[in-house]
Amino acid sequence: MAYRARLKVRFGDIDQAGVVYYPRFLHYFHVAMEELFTAEVGLDYARVLLEHRFALPAVHLEVDFRRPLRYGDVIDVDVRVVRVGRASVEWRYAVHRLEGPEPVATGRVVTAGIDLDSFASREVPDWLRDALERHVDPPQA
Amino acid sequence: MAYRARLKVRFGDIDQAGVVYYPRFLHYFHVAMEELFTAEVGLDYARVLLEHRFALPAVHLEVDFRRPLRYGDVIDVDVRVVRVGRASVEWRYAVHRLEGPEPVATGRVVTAGIDLDSFASREVPDWLRDALERHVDPPQA
Amino acid sequence: MAYRARLKVRFGDIDQAGVVYYPRFLHYFHVAMEELFTAEVGLDYARVLLEHRFALPAVHLEVDFRRPLRYGDVIDVDVRVVRVGRASVEWRYAVHRLEGPEPVATGRVVTAGIDLDSFASREVPDWLRDALERHVDPPQA
Amino acid sequence: MAYRARLKVRFGDIDQAGVVYYPRFLHYFHVAMEELFTAEVGLDYARVLLEHRFALPAVHLEVDFRRPLRYGDVIDVDVRVVRVGRASVEWRYAVHRLEGPEPVATGRVVTAGIDLDSFASREVPDWLRDALERHVDPPQA
Repeated sequence: MAYRARLKVRFGDIDQAGVVYYPRFLHYFHVAMEELFTAEVGLDYARVLLEHRFALPAVHLEVDFRRPLRYGDVIDVDVRVVRVGRASVEWRYAVHRLEGPEPVATGRVVTAGIDLDSFASREVPDWLRDALERHVDPPQA
Repeated sequence: MAYRARLKVRFGDIDQAGVVYYPRFLHYFHVAMEELFTAEVGLDYARVLLEHRFALPAVHLEVDFRRPLRYGDVIDVDVRVVRVGRASVEWRYAVHRLEGPEPVATGRVVTAGIDLDSFASREVPDWLRDALERHVDPPQA
Repeated sequence: MAYRARLKVRFGDIDQAGVVYYPRFLHYFHVAMEELFTAEVGLDYARVLLEHRFALPAVHLEVDFRRPLRYGDVIDVDVRVVRVGRASVEWRYAVHRLEGPEPVATGRVVTAGIDLDSFASREVPDWLRDALERHVDPPQA
Repeated sequence: MAYRARLKVRFGDIDQAGVVYYPRFLHYFHVAMEELFTAEVGLDYARVLLEHRFALPAVHLEVDFRRPLRYGDVIDVDVRVVRVGRASVEWRYAVHRLEGPEPVATGRVVTAGIDLDSFASREVPDWLRDALERHVDPPQA
């Protein structure tokens, strides 16, 4: 089951083509992941980093941009955990505009568990694994 | 043959983990593409948009993040045209730090030719096709 | 009376010093102004631009940064209209963290009314003047 | 005497009004300051932070935006040190387009010396004071 974060396209998100600058979608994805931590893990991602010294940087991503987003669009960013590995977590994202059923963008991001101080690989802590696995939602075909 | 743009990681590019925020790599890719237009196509991408009303938004991207980038790193962003389709262009990117032979990130971006006013699909104009095809460099295995 | 927008400091808002990158405060100001349009003017700033072809770019700003903002901080951005001129609007901003009464940043921004197509000076339309003047709140000493 | 950094307005710097998003000017200022450190202080600002644990966050800024910047503009950002205090440095900025003598934006930024670990006030180190004072250029009337 996806966690849904509602966001608004902002004035400064727009590029010279009059649509959302494509790196900004990755920012939307990250904000949605942050919201999932707060709402579903019960611990801000800020505290995961600053207190637990654990982070999940992206190591691989794929994104399909299907329709442009424009200034004023209100969007739902659905974020799903699709796999919790030993030291990695895989996420899927889908962005929808409120008006219209079809996704404007979909993405897959693989993140690696690391120690924030050494940047060495680090296993997903059990408390986080438990929280994330409750939300595991295998990708549809 | 790749076009190489030299960039610097800036103070504001860094995130809470102390490394370059991952959407920022996509910005680096775009800046390198802009530089390729200026240097190799002989026409700023700004003029392609504003005068020719033609744009190449990303419709698909894949990125592998292999090593973190840190503040102060000087990077070379290699951008290669790997295919010029009827109404699309495919690009490959590789980011290297000056110190160290191994890429910190590699990416593939497929862009679609559109009319900037209608956002409808539009063929790559001949003058641009000619300029880009001189740089086509099929991907290595 | 100020309009209050609640925002969260995001992972990517942080700079190498571990605090919010200072240009990002200006983005927070703009987001709060956008929210004021939606909530108090009753028309998204997006529609003011795209339909009425009227915009209010900043021509002067002053900001005092009093305390750093950190990742995970939840903030209230208070935005007040302090003067509606013939073809200008002056705004005051104050950013507070939820924990702590003292402002982390305060700002004053003067915006100029322009025609979005010509960028020539343009009077604040009556419907907007009326809506903004209901919120005029002269600055305290 | 000002240090001059040449920058280009990038595709993603543009906002819905078709001009550079105003917080982006502050980023340009910071990039110019970073370049001054590299070229004139002889030490990257990155190393000042990461090795000397000294930082100069903005505590006050004033900016006048006189003309819009557009995509494709090449700009010179002049940065001048106008005062080196005990634990502060004041900077002036002026942004010019290559085409046209008149500034598009001017700014004044006061930065405070801090210890990067404690964020407590810290005196400007002598080696930095010496380097910056060689460039002190009192503001013209």
